[in-house]
Amino acid sequence: MVGGGQGAFIGAVHRQALALDGQAELVAGALSSTPERAYASGRELGLADARNHADWQSLLDDELKRTPDERIDFVTIVTPNHLHHSVARAFAAAGIHVVCDKPLVHTSEQAQDLVETVARSGSVFGVTYNYSGYPMVREARDLVAGGAIGEVRKVVVDYHQGWLATRLEGGDNKQAGWRTDPARSGAAGALGDIGSHAENLVATVTGLELESLCADLSALVPDRRLDDDASLLLRFKGGARGVLVASQIAVGCENDLRLRVFGSTGTLDWRQEQPEMLVHAPLDGPRRLLTRGSPWLGASARLATRLPAGHPEGFIEAFANVYLGVIAHIRALQQGVAPDPLRADYPTLADGARGVRFIEKAVESAASAQKWTAF
Amino acid sequence: MVGGGQGAFIGAVHRQALALDGQAELVAGALSSTPERAYASGRELGLADARNHADWQSLLDDELKRTPDERIDFVTIVTPNHLHHSVARAFAAAGIHVVCDKPLVHTSEQAQDLVETVARSGSVFGVTYNYSGYPMVREARDLVAGGAIGEVRKVVVDYHQGWLATRLEGGDNKQAGWRTDPARSGAAGALGDIGSHAENLVATVTGLELESLCADLSALVPDRRLDDDASLLLRFKGGARGVLVASQIAVGCENDLRLRVFGSTGTLDWRQEQPEMLVHAPLDGPRRLLTRGSPWLGASARLATRLPAGHPEGFIEAFANVYLGVIAHIRALQQGVAPDPLRADYPTLADGARGVRFIEKAVESAASAQKWTAF
Amino acid sequence: MVGGGQGAFIGAVHRQALALDGQAELVAGALSSTPERAYASGRELGLADARNHADWQSLLDDELKRTPDERIDFVTIVTPNHLHHSVARAFAAAGIHVVCDKPLVHTSEQAQDLVETVARSGSVFGVTYNYSGYPMVREARDLVAGGAIGEVRKVVVDYHQGWLATRLEGGDNKQAGWRTDPARSGAAGALGDIGSHAENLVATVTGLELESLCADLSALVPDRRLDDDASLLLRFKGGARGVLVASQIAVGCENDLRLRVFGSTGTLDWRQEQPEMLVHAPLDGPRRLLTRGSPWLGASARLATRLPAGHPEGFIEAFANVYLGVIAHIRALQQGVAPDPLRADYPTLADGARGVRFIEKAVESAASAQKWTAF
Amino acid sequence: MVGGGQGAFIGAVHRQALALDGQAELVAGALSSTPERAYASGRELGLADARNHADWQSLLDDELKRTPDERIDFVTIVTPNHLHHSVARAFAAAGIHVVCDKPLVHTSEQAQDLVETVARSGSVFGVTYNYSGYPMVREARDLVAGGAIGEVRKVVVDYHQGWLATRLEGGDNKQAGWRTDPARSGAAGALGDIGSHAENLVATVTGLELESLCADLSALVPDRRLDDDASLLLRFKGGARGVLVASQIAVGCENDLRLRVFGSTGTLDWRQEQPEMLVHAPLDGPRRLLTRGSPWLGASARLATRLPAGHPEGFIEAFANVYLGVIAHIRALQQGVAPDPLRADYPTLADGARGVRFIEKAVESAASAQKWTAF
Repeated sequence: MVGGGQGAFIGAVHRQALALDGQAELVAGALSSTPERAYASGRELGLADARNHADWQSLLDDELKRTPDERIDFVTIVTPNHLHHSVARAFAAAGIHVVCDKPLVHTSEQAQDLVETVARSGSVFGVTYNYSGYPMVREARDLVAGGAIGEVRKVVVDYHQGWLATRLEGGDNKQAGWRTDPARSGAAGALGDIGSHAENLVATVTGLELESLCADLSALVPDRRLDDDASLLLRFKGGARGVLVASQIAVGCENDLRLRVFGSTGTLDWRQEQPEMLVHAPLDGPRRLLTRGSPWLGASARLATRLPAGHPEGFIEAFANVYLGVIAHIRALQQGVAPDPLRADYPTLADGARGVRFIEKAVESAASAQKWTAF
Repeated sequence: MVGGGQGAFIGAVHRQALALDGQAELVAGALSSTPERAYASGRELGLADARNHADWQSLLDDELKRTPDERIDFVTIVTPNHLHHSVARAFAAAGIHVVCDKPLVHTSEQAQDLVETVARSGSVFGVTYNYSGYPMVREARDLVAGGAIGEVRKVVVDYHQGWLATRLEGGDNKQAGWRTDPARSGAAGALGDIGSHAENLVATVTGLELESLCADLSALVPDRRLDDDASLLLRFKGGARGVLVASQIAVGCENDLRLRVFGSTGTLDWRQEQPEMLVHAPLDGPRRLLTRGSPWLGASARLATRLPAGHPEGFIEAFANVYLGVIAHIRALQQGVAPDPLRADYPTLADGARGVRFIEKAVESAASAQKWTAF
Repeated sequence: MVGGGQGAFIGAVHRQALALDGQAELVAGALSSTPERAYASGRELGLADARNHADWQSLLDDELKRTPDERIDFVTIVTPNHLHHSVARAFAAAGIHVVCDKPLVHTSEQAQDLVETVARSGSVFGVTYNYSGYPMVREARDLVAGGAIGEVRKVVVDYHQGWLATRLEGGDNKQAGWRTDPARSGAAGALGDIGSHAENLVATVTGLELESLCADLSALVPDRRLDDDASLLLRFKGGARGVLVASQIAVGCENDLRLRVFGSTGTLDWRQEQPEMLVHAPLDGPRRLLTRGSPWLGASARLATRLPAGHPEGFIEAFANVYLGVIAHIRALQQGVAPDPLRADYPTLADGARGVRFIEKAVESAASAQKWTAF
Repeated sequence: MVGGGQGAFIGAVHRQALALDGQAELVAGALSSTPERAYASGRELGLADARNHADWQSLLDDELKRTPDERIDFVTIVTPNHLHHSVARAFAAAGIHVVCDKPLVHTSEQAQDLVETVARSGSVFGVTYNYSGYPMVREARDLVAGGAIGEVRKVVVDYHQGWLATRLEGGDNKQAGWRTDPARSGAAGALGDIGSHAENLVATVTGLELESLCADLSALVPDRRLDDDASLLLRFKGGARGVLVASQIAVGCENDLRLRVFGSTGTLDWRQEQPEMLVHAPLDGPRRLLTRGSPWLGASARLATRLPAGHPEGFIEAFANVYLGVIAHIRALQQGVAPDPLRADYPTLADGARGVRFIEKAVESAASAQKWTAF
């Protein structure tokens, strides 16, 4: 693992997600940006000294010296965004499988570079768009693909958080610090942090491809350097329309991501804060409450389920499902068999690259007087 | 009453709203567009033959011949939109008070003409943006005005209906017929029918003034002649941002109007389908569920309340509240006293005119390659 | 109308319910328990002096002197409970149709007396168990009757209010005064006021007949003279079980009546505070949200509907539906035709009498050391 | 671990809960009731052969031969109920700490025996009433204890599941088999399986002590040998009243456990299927939605929290919190320090013993013609 040491948020989630299913174990790391903090973090997590590194280059060097048997199966990159590219590139080029946090990198050039690197090395490369790991999101995706709501006409995705409603940056909130800093977070703030999740959710569930977009990005909290509020109109190939809202100044909203997909014969409605339920409204009957663990769900949702219906699963399980997908792919490669698409189900480098392009194009649109920016 | 006879929907609602409080009685009408139907509708509703007219001109002529004592106190106009202007103009010019359905008229020129007419005649003129009559909408308005959520930064209003998800027009659905017909409905479909409610709700609750907007209007059902789906980005004077969505192709949605107002120190969230509740999220504490009938609500909400908390009031009561406001104004005029602003609380001609402008500007924006169209 | 004058709550609801549909008009009354208040109340409501009476006896005498054409079609009795019997008996004996509030009377003897009186006179007699008038309650009833949930096995009904959580009686709350006074309210407090609604809801929806019950009645607020909290175990003929809870000390609860009916092949769940929705859970599929105004509802629910789906109807509409049922019955009698059971749909004297017995038996059980008291 | 091998449900949950926080590792086991299955289960879970046993006696013998350093810190017992007593007794008597599933044992005599055994050996003994591990349940407990709702007057707890609505026993559902079998499940079915959770939740949150109860237990599915439906009236010392419902024939209900606590100055309402939220209704203001992860929660709830608000935690986290409490207690003992009550927060043997008594008394009451059975 690179990053995710003391003071970080998402690193612990990755570790818990991995621990949950016991399919992988943390054996080596370079867990923070200063050697002291890195070492301390590794010791806290029980890393052997020999595999507890000051920086990611030492980690990589050390791993490459080890026998394949002893070497890590994959690296997880959970640093702030600006480090993703060089770390991911180096590990992937060395033939090590990669799991990288989102947004993938800062620019499409970097993304394209990663795509080419991975094409050469054959590494498995997963991007932790964790919301795609929820069973009911997978059910939504499969319902759309199976025609349950006909042709998709309109998509509304909104993602509201309130934690940046005041000027936290400048204080001791590490998250607030780097997420509002263009040097570390990239050209976008809320758009990059959570808008990217919204984009991925739309793409995952609907399979629609963006044709053009129109973005309004704002920093609504005084003196903020990156957008904390994003509103976009979307046009998809084939004629569907969309609206995407991502805001981190929404007082009282915790992690309120909601996706509504309106098709010609039905509608799907899912909310991350009640992730166990997917509402399906068919044209010719009452709304149906689909819940995780029900026998009438499809194979993907059932496979992503650990507990019976009504025994709430949550964020960590969804995260773990992404990992299970990546690991299934890695194992298949290791065993020389074709990955089972039902099991090797995870957001890929292509998703990550498209997400970077989405951010770029939204930022470009926000600066433009033209209504539509081609995607 | 003009319009609202056999086959109409909203006319009956107006009559029930009026009946509820017993503050006005239907005594005269020209209730439909053909004489036969008009007469039949009037007889059905118990109008005296002498006051049951074939057309609105006869109604007006007849009323003007009557003594003030016998004359109607006000006229309600519930025809399809294209007739609003001429009817409203004639009655207002004659000094009769007017209640007119929304959207007010087809063009800003017509709206301006009405404004001037009313300025001359001194008529009271209410526009039935009925959602503003809900007690909890009034509470939201008063909370914003009172500073409960600080400075408004972002507004998200979405209004989803599903009844036009299939091509009903051309069949025997009278509503679907005129609402998708530019000649009768005006330049906008869903935008005019329900987007206009959304616009009014935003203006009523926040008091914000639009600076510019960016609209995407679509007819997502094949062969439809007017938009059935509208998505808009909004910019308000002072820097607040907004998103407005109005769609009538949202399968499974009934009348799903929701307003969220995000301020610097709090958020308000209201949904028309559960109109008795307003969620208030303060920056420094848990979300609070404000419900109609509670002793801690403000004077407007309490005054607009008939039943104790938990005894659901609904659409008709909200409609009736608009009428109570108009009637309070009329009575004050009749008694020669200043209207009590707390009681004479209703959407005015200015609201109606602004709503017309909103539709015009949105249609203009939808046709433009420029991102922002000034309001 | 007898009762329902100044200071009363439910009288105004009856009048609004009647006004809503314009099917009946208030023409005569004895509206309060003192002549002064009665006269003042009647004047306020626009009664002609000749038909505004000091007491119900004068009202009845006067009506009987009038021609059938001029005479009231029915009387509505909305006094405190202790007056129901004598008033209802007198009007019914005189051949006048009656609508009486619930609980019907204080004792089963009185109820039986009314049943016999009405059998002799042939009066129509409705009891305003208003919750039975909600369209979705009627849908629930028809679903059960149609076998949609198989054999009913268990019923849970709970009715929580919080308005009597403090000792309001003794203050100026007229409601709190008489409802906690055994002389005026009868042998039961919360049980009589709202437990009786719960009992009626169960009987209406399930059609089950009580076999025995076990009650715990408590006055949880110090110095209260009647129960403010009731919990009952129920056994029905045929083996179904039930639980009924009625409490008026439930802080924060407004009018939270909920009915769940568990059958061998499905479950129904309805809440009065969101009366537009009925949840139906079939054994072999996801939960379905049935909403008022939907085309897939049965005839009773559709007939009890005024507005399109999503345009909230509420308490007054449900009340009005009860009146429509009574009036349909009266009109059929007046026209000499058989009442249409679909339209003459209202709670009858038999419902009222059973409700009285329910209260009696619950009070008897509460005082007994035996677990089961036969019904 | 004893039990929890192939075909079991809850064993895997225990293991995931332990894995989540990495505070304990499964090193030894006797995982199933036949040697073959036990061995196979252990191999599947990666147990070393030397610590993978055919039965719990061999496991215990082997552990006692090991050095304290190598020996397990505690044993987890997840067998069907009838084995709890002998296994728990043996391990506790040997001075090994114990975590045992609920209901603890079959009889109060067995429970008392365990209490005495533990008193002698000094073992830590936790009982996995896992719902007490939810942060918002702990918040509820602390709010009640802190006087936030005044004096508790009434408790309503209902627990509905639907999985036993048909006659699953006799088929290949292992759960359904033993849970409806008196020999393995004890004298109670639904009451023992889920009613016991409800009892514990009430006791945990309110601290109230039962004075007497009145139970109606039924087997509503034909030919079932144990109750699948339980309804109880409760009386608590000090005068509070209660209702407890536990049913497993509630079609469409998944794991619908809800607790409402009505106090003299407030109400708390919590639902297991939306465990992140606790509704608090104070007497003098609107309902407040308390959510996990909020800064205004108390120390217990904050300590039991892993993820930020809005990132759903669920069933496994709650389970893990119970383990964290037990482990904190064990660690304190190992370190010779007093356990921190805030951290050593878990359901104890006393809870387990009281739960057994609750089942016994409810079964006794169900067979009695007397209304109240003393507790």
